[in-house]
Amino acid sequence: MTSAEELLPATAKGRATRDRIVDAAADLMLAHGVQGATNPEIRAAAKVSGSQLSLYFPDKESLVRAVLARRGDQVIDLLHTTAHGDLDSIAALRSWAAFYTERPNSWEGGCRFGSLAGDVLKSDLNLTADVTDGFDRWHAVFESGLTTMRERGDLRADAQPATLATILLAAFQGGMLLAQAQHSIDPLATALEGAIDFVASFGPRD
Amino acid sequence: MTSAEELLPATAKGRATRDRIVDAAADLMLAHGVQGATNPEIRAAAKVSGSQLSLYFPDKESLVRAVLARRGDQVIDLLHTTAHGDLDSIAALRSWAAFYTERPNSWEGGCRFGSLAGDVLKSDLNLTADVTDGFDRWHAVFESGLTTMRERGDLRADAQPATLATILLAAFQGGMLLAQAQHSIDPLATALEGAIDFVASFGPRD
Repeated sequence: MTSAEELLPATAKGRATRDRIVDAAADLMLAHGVQGATNPEIRAAAKVSGSQLSLYFPDKESLVRAVLARRGDQVIDLLHTTAHGDLDSIAALRSWAAFYTERPNSWEGGCRFGSLAGDVLKSDLNLTADVTDGFDRWHAVFESGLTTMRERGDLRADAQPATLATILLAAFQGGMLLAQAQHSIDPLATALEGAIDFVASFGPRD
Repeated sequence: MTSAEELLPATAKGRATRDRIVDAAADLMLAHGVQGATNPEIRAAAKVSGSQLSLYFPDKESLVRAVLARRGDQVIDLLHTTAHGDLDSIAALRSWAAFYTERPNSWEGGCRFGSLAGDVLKSDLNLTADVTDGFDRWHAVFESGLTTMRERGDLRADAQPATLATILLAAFQGGMLLAQAQHSIDPLATALEGAIDFVASFGPRD
């Protein structure tokens, strides 16, 4: 966390400008990768001047950090929206998965956060901690829901929430990459169904 | 497949030069991404001139295509090497997984093929079919082994080899991305163990 990132604009207009830059950069980075999103394109898409861009984001690192944080927030919001609350039941997990698998083009661009994360990890930007933080927040939502399920008796005592959370998150990221390669949502659907079935296999024995 | 890609050098020396270029490009692309690997860097690393580079690879697409094919071959070789043969038993799958999980730094750079694939899918290069082909070949090795297991009775009749192959491949790709983010092999180990346990759950009922 640099001090540059914490310089949030004092006025509503300033915040709106900053938001517009982050949104434009996020879209361009999703489409063309972190390195493929150039300042002139970002300025044009956000309708800001070069001096406005450098006022809020003095360097690429500060901009990518803001995009990662935005995407991380959106992913967490979407988890709860698609699951209609917490991810604390098999039905909620299936509802989350269905959001993607029932929209045949949802593979386009890949995972809003994971795709960007892969790029950042390969770049020279010093943002690994920001990527880790994003995945950790996502993992925590799964782990919290799975812990509730175990406490409630929906999962047996030998179910390990942290382990199962990693399995769900990996299935999503890997399935999304395969879906992008195949131009089909099928691999993601298969990977998520497998992971959720695995979680369900820790349900109470008959 | 362009005609350029099929122009393999006629002489052993030419083939060695071409190989050196592909290896150098593959390493640079793994470290810095497809867009981050520049021609001057590739020429320097492969110790070739600009005219040699453009003789074998007239454009970036032809070079990335060759790198994808090379990485795809290496992944298939490594599958068989690490499993000591075909991936047609739970022990063979665990042996393949152990190759990664017992080497604590094997997350560095991510999956040799998958990391490159993610980059290519985000680029303007017309190479989606090459990425699909690489994952398909990988998937086929898993599917073939799982089919043998089912025929042998190691898996029940309701086990679906194609589905389980996708689950294994997704767990590997997603686990590797999370391992890169955490600078730890643990998420990959967890994802692979979960996927292999899921496959094993289709074993004959007691």
